[in-house]
Amino acid sequence: MTRRSAGLALAGSMAARLAAQTADPKKPIPPPGYSVMDMGGLKHFMPDKPERIAMLIYPGMTALDLIGPQQTFGYMLGCKVDLVARTSQPVVTDTGVKIEPSATLSGLPDPDLIFVPGGGKGTVALMTDPEVIGFLAEKGKSARYVTSVCSGSLVLAAAGLLRGYKATSHWAVRDVLPTLGAKLAPGRVVEDRNRITAGGVTAGIDFGLHLVAKLRGEDYARAVQLMLEYDPHPPFESGTPVQAHTDTREFVTQMYAPLLKAAQTSAEAARAKWRDS
Amino acid sequence: MTRRSAGLALAGSMAARLAAQTADPKKPIPPPGYSVMDMGGLKHFMPDKPERIAMLIYPGMTALDLIGPQQTFGYMLGCKVDLVARTSQPVVTDTGVKIEPSATLSGLPDPDLIFVPGGGKGTVALMTDPEVIGFLAEKGKSARYVTSVCSGSLVLAAAGLLRGYKATSHWAVRDVLPTLGAKLAPGRVVEDRNRITAGGVTAGIDFGLHLVAKLRGEDYARAVQLMLEYDPHPPFESGTPVQAHTDTREFVTQMYAPLLKAAQTSAEAARAKWRDS
Repeated sequence: MTRRSAGLALAGSMAARLAAQTADPKKPIPPPGYSVMDMGGLKHFMPDKPERIAMLIYPGMTALDLIGPQQTFGYMLGCKVDLVARTSQPVVTDTGVKIEPSATLSGLPDPDLIFVPGGGKGTVALMTDPEVIGFLAEKGKSARYVTSVCSGSLVLAAAGLLRGYKATSHWAVRDVLPTLGAKLAPGRVVEDRNRITAGGVTAGIDFGLHLVAKLRGEDYARAVQLMLEYDPHPPFESGTPVQAHTDTREFVTQMYAPLLKAAQTSAEAARAKWRDS
Repeated sequence: MTRRSAGLALAGSMAARLAAQTADPKKPIPPPGYSVMDMGGLKHFMPDKPERIAMLIYPGMTALDLIGPQQTFGYMLGCKVDLVARTSQPVVTDTGVKIEPSATLSGLPDPDLIFVPGGGKGTVALMTDPEVIGFLAEKGKSARYVTSVCSGSLVLAAAGLLRGYKATSHWAVRDVLPTLGAKLAPGRVVEDRNRITAGGVTAGIDFGLHLVAKLRGEDYARAVQLMLEYDPHPPFESGTPVQAHTDTREFVTQMYAPLLKAAQTSAEAARAKWRDS
């Protein structure tokens, strides 16, 4: 396509969009495979075939990384959400919550959306785990969305799924991402084509609502936000390294230093494996 | 005490506080049973005896109501957090997460803090459940803090624990509270003496950090907030009935109408039992 014909196509597409808006400015456009349904005055994108979402769970993960988005996905009518683990045994999170998987790596049909939560040492261990990395690399090829919250993006990156993509992670470990070919883009929710990564832990709620809006439309996401009474009132200004007091930032940074080092080492090991294969 | 002597006592107390501030304006005062420790420049209230926290879990509960505060409590060094259920069988949440209990109602030593998460029909069922209500009424007598997130406060109220106390709940069901003798005080985190109740679902994170600050000091809570990267960016202004679009509010209110009705019926039944006993 020449530059001129590309320009014309763009102008044509803009004109078409403008015409659609003029025809019915309130009619939202659903993604492919979805149709708009009226739900008590709200516009709901209903999928022709319910979405299959696979959320990886593993020992040492951070429970809130998982449950923030799980709660929002669970409110999407008809959506099938699986918690997928290596075995059918319960997984123990970094604060001692025991969560049972609903599926195992080997028994899972290809999901539409794949999701990896973050954590500490357990997350770093996954970065060089051939079984989990193999699973993600394979499912990531066909999934419509490849996603993570917190340090979960390091595992996606180790599986080669973020090479050339903008991505974020928990602030304390995000500097590891470029080692695995990702373009570090610090942010709460970072979207680059079909890769959607979120910041640390609590960013999972913002991420979940973002995905609900993408899949089921803004009206539906607004309803879910109201159901979750999501009008946050953080007690302090201490949610990012920039906001936090110097003492707080230094203390937490020092606390995470061994994890950052281990993640960097794992990233280099994961990258070395790409070359070998 | 006469008005004049009350005034003098107040002036005396203010003078004492001022003197304390002058002596060391940065020295925070720990709660009884805690001492201040220096933690890399931060002041950490360390308990003489680690806190015992009991978080009730039950079928149909909302996972995020539990996991928001559990993640913050889990980051309190040395704190013992139990997930307590009627039996040792896993509990299935309203979005299908299977969580294993770490203790049962009968096998639990008296906790320092008792917590009830909310949910839908499962929560309403608990309001007239003699075993759970008996457990809460008994443990609530000795606990230093009696707490809830979301509709969990309806269960505390059914156990008679909020009579004469200001309290809140999920916006959709909070109007039931006065039937059980509570003084409805809509808010994100509502504290009245040792009763601390929070609003719907996501309020659990604000609640958790509030409790961490109370127990371990503000410096510690700020560090936890930074660990959780809690700098929320809600995608829409739709977190409360007042913020939400009229269509959204009406849709969600109508969706919750049967639950509100069932909760009101259960509240009346619970109150009738108080009279009988």
